[in-house]
Amino acid sequence: MTTRDDCLALDARDPLAALREDFALPEGLIYLDGNSLGARPKAALERARQVVAEEWGDGLVGSWNSAGWRGLPERLGNQLARLIGAGEDEVVVTDTTSINLFKVLVAALRVQALRDPSRKVIVTERSNFPTDIYMAEGLADMLQQGYSLRLVDSPEALPGALGSDTAVVLVTQVNYKTGYLHDIGALTALAHECGALTIWDLCHSAGAVPIDLKASGADYAIGCTYKYLNGGPGSPAFVWVSPALREQVWQPLSGWWGHARQFGMEPRYEPAPGIGRYLCGTQPITSLAMVECGLATFARTDMQALREKSLALTDLFIEQVQARCGRHPLTLVTPLEHARRGSHVSFEHPEGYAVIQALIDRGVIGDYREPRIMRFGFTPLYTRFTDAWDAARILAEVLDGETWRDERFLARKQVT
Amino acid sequence: MTTRDDCLALDARDPLAALREDFALPEGLIYLDGNSLGARPKAALERARQVVAEEWGDGLVGSWNSAGWRGLPERLGNQLARLIGAGEDEVVVTDTTSINLFKVLVAALRVQALRDPSRKVIVTERSNFPTDIYMAEGLADMLQQGYSLRLVDSPEALPGALGSDTAVVLVTQVNYKTGYLHDIGALTALAHECGALTIWDLCHSAGAVPIDLKASGADYAIGCTYKYLNGGPGSPAFVWVSPALREQVWQPLSGWWGHARQFGMEPRYEPAPGIGRYLCGTQPITSLAMVECGLATFARTDMQALREKSLALTDLFIEQVQARCGRHPLTLVTPLEHARRGSHVSFEHPEGYAVIQALIDRGVIGDYREPRIMRFGFTPLYTRFTDAWDAARILAEVLDGETWRDERFLARKQVT
Repeated sequence: MTTRDDCLALDARDPLAALREDFALPEGLIYLDGNSLGARPKAALERARQVVAEEWGDGLVGSWNSAGWRGLPERLGNQLARLIGAGEDEVVVTDTTSINLFKVLVAALRVQALRDPSRKVIVTERSNFPTDIYMAEGLADMLQQGYSLRLVDSPEALPGALGSDTAVVLVTQVNYKTGYLHDIGALTALAHECGALTIWDLCHSAGAVPIDLKASGADYAIGCTYKYLNGGPGSPAFVWVSPALREQVWQPLSGWWGHARQFGMEPRYEPAPGIGRYLCGTQPITSLAMVECGLATFARTDMQALREKSLALTDLFIEQVQARCGRHPLTLVTPLEHARRGSHVSFEHPEGYAVIQALIDRGVIGDYREPRIMRFGFTPLYTRFTDAWDAARILAEVLDGETWRDERFLARKQVT
Repeated sequence: MTTRDDCLALDARDPLAALREDFALPEGLIYLDGNSLGARPKAALERARQVVAEEWGDGLVGSWNSAGWRGLPERLGNQLARLIGAGEDEVVVTDTTSINLFKVLVAALRVQALRDPSRKVIVTERSNFPTDIYMAEGLADMLQQGYSLRLVDSPEALPGALGSDTAVVLVTQVNYKTGYLHDIGALTALAHECGALTIWDLCHSAGAVPIDLKASGADYAIGCTYKYLNGGPGSPAFVWVSPALREQVWQPLSGWWGHARQFGMEPRYEPAPGIGRYLCGTQPITSLAMVECGLATFARTDMQALREKSLALTDLFIEQVQARCGRHPLTLVTPLEHARRGSHVSFEHPEGYAVIQALIDRGVIGDYREPRIMRFGFTPLYTRFTDAWDAARILAEVLDGETWRDERFLARKQVT
């Protein structure tokens, strides 16, 4: 079994170890929640100061041009593209994941309406992140055109749920609860074989696992920038559309930023050529500008190196927890198979909420998801092997000592 | 005619003069574009530092609770509510104006579908801000339920355009080009008489003119926070719904932030009671938090005092321009009547684009809107009477000296 000295050695020879210096992490904290909110790049503070003091304060309205605010969604999209296997001028950073999902879902249904109007079913997982299901539900309800959702109960059930009635398959590549990792290429191929289009939600995978949207034949992708991409709290989301589909239809949130001539002030909408048509309204510039600081660190490494470290970290954490906590009612819900595992590890525990609170009290920041799921995210940019080892040790102490039974930890409040 | 000494005296006895000290305005600039991007409150820089360094950097994911991030849309909504005559817990600050318009437009159509499904027409002005028209166009196109737009050519033509087929009247209270000010109460009463609902876009009026949504019987309102409310570049927008209508229907962008139990992670959407159902996805916290700094200054005055100063400023500017520039091809397109005038003044000039560039070169920041419109915004929180006087004098100098004929000013680039 791995010792702490082994972990010290692993950290010492970790080729990615220096990347941690890009981040402002509080002393003494083991932060295993970068899969919910990424840590702060040190550069983000200076970037915020620059945007607020100089660009807004001094440059005022002229900064839309002089500071390049107007082009930020496209510029950031190009920086993000290489992390997800998208091409130049194929991604924009804008709005929220929910809103971007709405755009691509309507677009996909419109493409299908041109190809085969009888396809009316949106297939997704019951365990998909709720907002994805809610947005699809809201859309189907609004359209009143016979669209419906088909929710499947496991990743393995997805292929069998596809048929001649399927318009779109909407899948989150890494499941937010279990950490299950889908194969974009394989599922897209199956979907295409039966005539369906695919929408990939990359919230829990962008910046965590290698993704090659173009090589895998995907049709649409969306995702957030505030998890593994370290863009800052609620930083705007991204959207990618296969160039083969992009100009076939409008997206429905046809605001002025997506117009072919934004400042033409014309009374009719005409979508911009290219991915710019997926923009809608004026973007929150300070939050948007900091996304660049998160992306900058990725330029110093590559996704394959990050993936190797991520798997080594999650392997280590699983090994340590299973070895130390065998007598407690912990159930690993994350796949052991590398090809099926994202970059976070989840265990079920009947009192998972209280255990997570007790861990946070000990300086190990994981999070909790209903029902009973304790999540631990391993962000290879800044998580050390010793962090994984120490977190498992402290989890064992919390469970062995039953410190989670404290009233403070049992009393529920909303967890993010 | 008013002299510069008169203006100095007006500034000296201006009860609102001290509010200018809340803002970080560059030395020597006459900023008449607060109707496009409001100036920076000094407090915003420290607030940004606090959010980025402390709340994000140190507090990390825990700040969703400990720093109150999750409740920001509601808290800011309550601060904004008193500026527009809305009640407690009736406003949220979230998303963009375009997105919020989409939400309330679908909601209004759904209410009408329950009342009288034969009403299928959305009435608005052809000169409304383009994104409002584009969003309505995109929605009608998506629904395929027989909805259509009726664009009228003047504010006076609105009443005649309302009929038994009208579902919704969508009006921007102050026209972005002309500065024409609509009477919310009068037009809402006319709309209600013929069975239509009203949506008020307050982008160019919130923080500029007194608004009493509840007393005027309005149904829905949306608007931005980055103009007269000084929230920062692209800061999130707001949405208000009359409590009488709010719970009757869903809004269609049914993301997890609008769910009755956001962290219940339930597989079915259930809208939150109250205005919270108009939330959708995760908000850009740094941009959102600074909205508070803009709203704080309003707590030191009231909209009636601001309105009096605004009208005095626009009266002065109109008087000075008309007196000094009579021999030039300038046409005032802003109403002289106080009851019909917002807080910006627009003149047409055949070479308006070049004239605005020449003014900017002289340190007078106005802006240009197609076709031929030169806009000058008068933000009573920080604009002085001497600013209005000096701006008119410099405009006269630019026109008399024909300095706008310089190649630098004639060469068009995108203007925001």
